[in-house]
Amino acid sequence: MEKVKIIFVGLGGRGYGLLKDVCQMEDVEIVALCDLLPDRVERALKLVQEQKGNTPVTSADYKELFATVKADAVITPSAWQAHAPICIDAMKAGMYAATEVGGATSIEQCWELVRTSRETGMPCMMLENCCYGEFEMAVFNLVRKGFFGELVHAEGGYRHDLRAEVALGHERHHYRLDNYKRRNGDVYPTHALGPIAKTLDINRGNRMVSLVSIASKARGVNRWILDNRGEEFENAREPFALGDVVTTIITCANGETITLTHDTTLPRPYSRNYVIQGTKGIASEDANFSISIEGLTPQNDSWDPNEWRPMKEYYETHGHPLWKAYRSAGVKSGHGGMDYLVLRAFIEAVRDKTDTPIDVYDTAAWMAITPLSEDSVACGGKPVAIPDFTEGRWLTPRPVVRGKYCLDEVCEEAFEGITEL
Amino acid sequence: MEKVKIIFVGLGGRGYGLLKDVCQMEDVEIVALCDLLPDRVERALKLVQEQKGNTPVTSADYKELFATVKADAVITPSAWQAHAPICIDAMKAGMYAATEVGGATSIEQCWELVRTSRETGMPCMMLENCCYGEFEMAVFNLVRKGFFGELVHAEGGYRHDLRAEVALGHERHHYRLDNYKRRNGDVYPTHALGPIAKTLDINRGNRMVSLVSIASKARGVNRWILDNRGEEFENAREPFALGDVVTTIITCANGETITLTHDTTLPRPYSRNYVIQGTKGIASEDANFSISIEGLTPQNDSWDPNEWRPMKEYYETHGHPLWKAYRSAGVKSGHGGMDYLVLRAFIEAVRDKTDTPIDVYDTAAWMAITPLSEDSVACGGKPVAIPDFTEGRWLTPRPVVRGKYCLDEVCEEAFEGITEL
Repeated sequence: MEKVKIIFVGLGGRGYGLLKDVCQMEDVEIVALCDLLPDRVERALKLVQEQKGNTPVTSADYKELFATVKADAVITPSAWQAHAPICIDAMKAGMYAATEVGGATSIEQCWELVRTSRETGMPCMMLENCCYGEFEMAVFNLVRKGFFGELVHAEGGYRHDLRAEVALGHERHHYRLDNYKRRNGDVYPTHALGPIAKTLDINRGNRMVSLVSIASKARGVNRWILDNRGEEFENAREPFALGDVVTTIITCANGETITLTHDTTLPRPYSRNYVIQGTKGIASEDANFSISIEGLTPQNDSWDPNEWRPMKEYYETHGHPLWKAYRSAGVKSGHGGMDYLVLRAFIEAVRDKTDTPIDVYDTAAWMAITPLSEDSVACGGKPVAIPDFTEGRWLTPRPVVRGKYCLDEVCEEAFEGITEL
Repeated sequence: MEKVKIIFVGLGGRGYGLLKDVCQMEDVEIVALCDLLPDRVERALKLVQEQKGNTPVTSADYKELFATVKADAVITPSAWQAHAPICIDAMKAGMYAATEVGGATSIEQCWELVRTSRETGMPCMMLENCCYGEFEMAVFNLVRKGFFGELVHAEGGYRHDLRAEVALGHERHHYRLDNYKRRNGDVYPTHALGPIAKTLDINRGNRMVSLVSIASKARGVNRWILDNRGEEFENAREPFALGDVVTTIITCANGETITLTHDTTLPRPYSRNYVIQGTKGIASEDANFSISIEGLTPQNDSWDPNEWRPMKEYYETHGHPLWKAYRSAGVKSGHGGMDYLVLRAFIEAVRDKTDTPIDVYDTAAWMAITPLSEDSVACGGKPVAIPDFTEGRWLTPRPVVRGKYCLDEVCEEAFEGITEL
């Protein structure tokens, strides 16, 4: 079997982690490595040599690699603002493009992703690992089987205490610091939005139409620096642009609302606060990853008739078949196993020469929420229209690539007789 | 001791419940009862005769009672749209006014409450029982003692499956049905907003400046009627105006944001999803009524350094002194004990001839969120300005009535030597 040849662009903490996952895959060859920092390239090179036995080409210039190295796909866990340009250049060089999560820096950039993909025929996939989370996929499975009735509302967010990562961004070469200093909006919307969008059929019979975005004041990072590094540390008293909590409400063509929260510079336990609500039931991460569904979970005759039940009680009977197969094969490391799944989803699409389960329209629409959120915040919460990157293709059925990693439908037939992924 | 003389206007389910609470109070006399429905008046009259031994004057016309019965105060658990007119007439008749919770129907009505209170010198208090919830008060106590650092963001809502109450509104004489049929906005914002506003010093050094509001489609009540009453039942297929989930984001003068959710027509377990976030900690109802506070709750060195701890572990050491006294005196029935506290807060202000702990500015500002939310929804989520009902009085310190029921400060001295309320 011919191996899938991959170029990795971006080898920081996240890039190195994904590289480790990919090195475990026997059907993948790492043919080139790229980062602006030589020590990162060195560390990654050593890993590939040890794990895979070959010596990839290395460079600090990804364009040079794209022009000279023959590969099937590019994976880019680079800084947020580099994702789109690298993906565009990868597709122009005839390769599949996979971008780590993160928002766009302009709407034009999202259009360029779409245009380039259509002109080159090369897919572009955001590696939104949370689309493959066990809880999110079980909710998706229940939704597709009708348990939630008609969907009405969803919530989610990225709520994670990253004060140290932001404050120490320059010494750790992390892109968050410069973004947080100057931008104000939901800079990281996709961990919740990805699975919500797939569940709500966004770009396939539905689309995101408009949003409003409001930011709180920014106090968390300054306070953290003063308390942990003192007055003399950089940015101790200089203001940050990014509000500590940015709340966005998206309206969809079919009337659903999506509330997103970006909340990364205050002390708090981690949560993506995933919520899906329909006319027959609700799922909620913050309620201890629970569901309450008419006809499935218990009800009573009190003033509060619906009861929560932990989703884990239903994984055996109502979990997504991908996770049942994954559990029996053995869950791999990396954010609770999601990283392996999203990487396999991409690699197998490259191998099979199909479109990716998260396609370029999904990628563009999800990334676009960031600059649109910035626009709305800048205008005091004004409603902002969300472009239709499909240019009307959402109105009529588009072909679905069925299979184990499909995020549009639950493809039971792909798991018949399967005990390993 | 002279008893506080009360007129009750509105004797439906909620009115009867509050009347029962008040009948237990030895220092209160019920002097008149009013409702449009004779059977409700009859039932209430019987209760007062049995519990208090006197026979109040009764009428279907509250204006007649206000003109002829001498009383100190009016309590009105009537339909939402009657709250403001009844309170205005009560103050004009020289009585304290207490309104059950609910939103206004116009901004002018809120101004009229404020103007009337100032012209007559009579206070007007919304009986927002959730301001006296044990969790909310413990959070307030921790905030005032500095544990949360600088406050940045708050969330809350009214999330309660009321589909039967709405659908059967006409046979049960409930005002929700007509409101839900024709209005679209957060019609019931105060259960979360009340305690949040007090915690954020709204109208005392801070104020609510603007809001945006977005409504989902309305599907829940129609679905419930079809599933439980069938095609022929009223409103089975006629549309409801009120979106199943209405999300509102309020911005405050000091830069905090407040996210409110109205979610009462989908199946879901009850929650007010109360959240308070500051630079040093967070409290969250949905995370099992827990807190995570630097210096108080445990922290670790992982990627998720802050841990939840149930607030109940801290009630003994960090609970509000009112609830410590209440627990040792014996908690009364009525929404977990809150109803008794908010009624005592009002009665004791009437008795002591002081302002009420929730004053007319609070009442007007909280009620105003409803019509402003309707305006924003009607304009596609446009930002709407929130009036300053204090007309600048929020900028400089205003006198606080200290005491056990104070909601602006924690008045420790009021509890010295106190073991009973």
